Amino acid sequence: MRKAVCLLSGGMDSTTLAYVARDMGYAICGLHMSYGQLTEIKERECARIIAEKLGAVELMEITLEHLLRFGKSSLTDRSLSVGDHDGNGKGIPNTYVPFRNANLLSIATSYAESSGAEAIFIGVQASDYAGYPDCRPEFVEAFQQVIDTGTADNTHIRLMSPFVHLNKTDIIRRGLALGVPYEDTWSCYRSNAPACGRCDSCHYRLQAFREAGVPDPIEYGD
Amino acid sequence: MRKAVCLLSGGMDSTTLAYVARDMGYAICGLHMSYGQLTEIKERECARIIAEKLGAVELMEITLEHLLRFGKSSLTDRSLSVGDHDGNGKGIPNTYVPFRNANLLSIATSYAESSGAEAIFIGVQASDYAGYPDCRPEFVEAFQQVIDTGTADNTHIRLMSPFVHLNKTDIIRRGLALGVPYEDTWSCYRSNAPACGRCDSCHYRLQAFREAGVPDPIEYGD
Repeated sequence: MRKAVCLLSGGMDSTTLAYVARDMGYAICGLHMSYGQLTEIKERECARIIAEKLGAVELMEITLEHLLRFGKSSLTDRSLSVGDHDGNGKGIPNTYVPFRNANLLSIATSYAESSGAEAIFIGVQASDYAGYPDCRPEFVEAFQQVIDTGTADNTHIRLMSPFVHLNKTDIIRRGLALGVPYEDTWSCYRSNAPACGRCDSCHYRLQAFREAGVPDPIEYGD
Repeated sequence: MRKAVCLLSGGMDSTTLAYVARDMGYAICGLHMSYGQLTEIKERECARIIAEKLGAVELMEITLEHLLRFGKSSLTDRSLSVGDHDGNGKGIPNTYVPFRNANLLSIATSYAESSGAEAIFIGVQASDYAGYPDCRPEFVEAFQQVIDTGTADNTHIRLMSPFVHLNKTDIIRRGLALGVPYEDTWSCYRSNAPACGRCDSCHYRLQAFREAGVPDPIEYGD
């Protein structure tokens, strides 16, 4: 059975994507990273439950110290705060973790090359790259070139980001059809539980559930 | 003063390159990674001495767990052994750590973007990419694209690999002119001291010193 490394953050996008990868016939090698983000405990708990429910071959949990040490993001730097969604969303939000996704994809590629996986699935999607440079389609394409040139000539790893042009509502619709347990996913940037309901990530999640016409099964604070 | 992140492995190539970067007028932000390689203790010790002698602004020491956990390289996987240089050098040596340099460059880019550094110096050179895919010029060029697309639009980081077409003899000649203390560098793949003198890395180092017409100041075993 062909293997795929699936980045499993514990969030709704990567979870849905892992279900898509399974539906495509891949055996799932889950990869979860803790990097000092505010909600790392909850995210890891969700990733574990999802890996179990999915029947992943394994869940590789990696702890990174460097993004926390470099700081400069409100997710990792305790001197900054995560703001409420303000609807003006211009520029890069302070939740941007400098070049995080290249770090995650490099780890995923090392894992894939070491374990013989043929693909890497990353759940970047359209509303992300309104703000985050390392979610842009051009970034993902450039990273494929890095994989092709930086791994052995007989290694062939395809970087799969089928959600890159979808919005979160499309993703939920896709996930509901695949039976994704959204009650076991986490999106809030701020809190390990209940979700704050006000940060950008909660805002876009709640909006997507509303648009999809289904209730969001997780608990929100006031 | 413009800042540059210099990957400082403790080896002779990256050390020489850091001296070149300083000579170009950069303030040096040293970045050293321990990833479970056999000689990590000695390499870190060398990187610290070099950073001190160079007058680096800081030395960021990062420990990575994942390359060790993924294994599949004789540098990180205790079930494999580092062979002697055999002169037939075909294909990828088992000292290749899958996609290691992309991991190092991702960390370097996060560090550079977080700290406002304008450049990243990596000491890859011609005899490396005879064997290692993640030392090829095409890889370095592709990574520049990843940096350009995956960081903020007002971030400009130049990936500098001026040794990419030089051999180790050229590098030593350059370093001697800059006063590089080669007695404080380490190349052996196998041993924390004395150097084995027989692995690929010792072989190419010794050959380069012979060709440069100067003695290698470090100690070798029998």
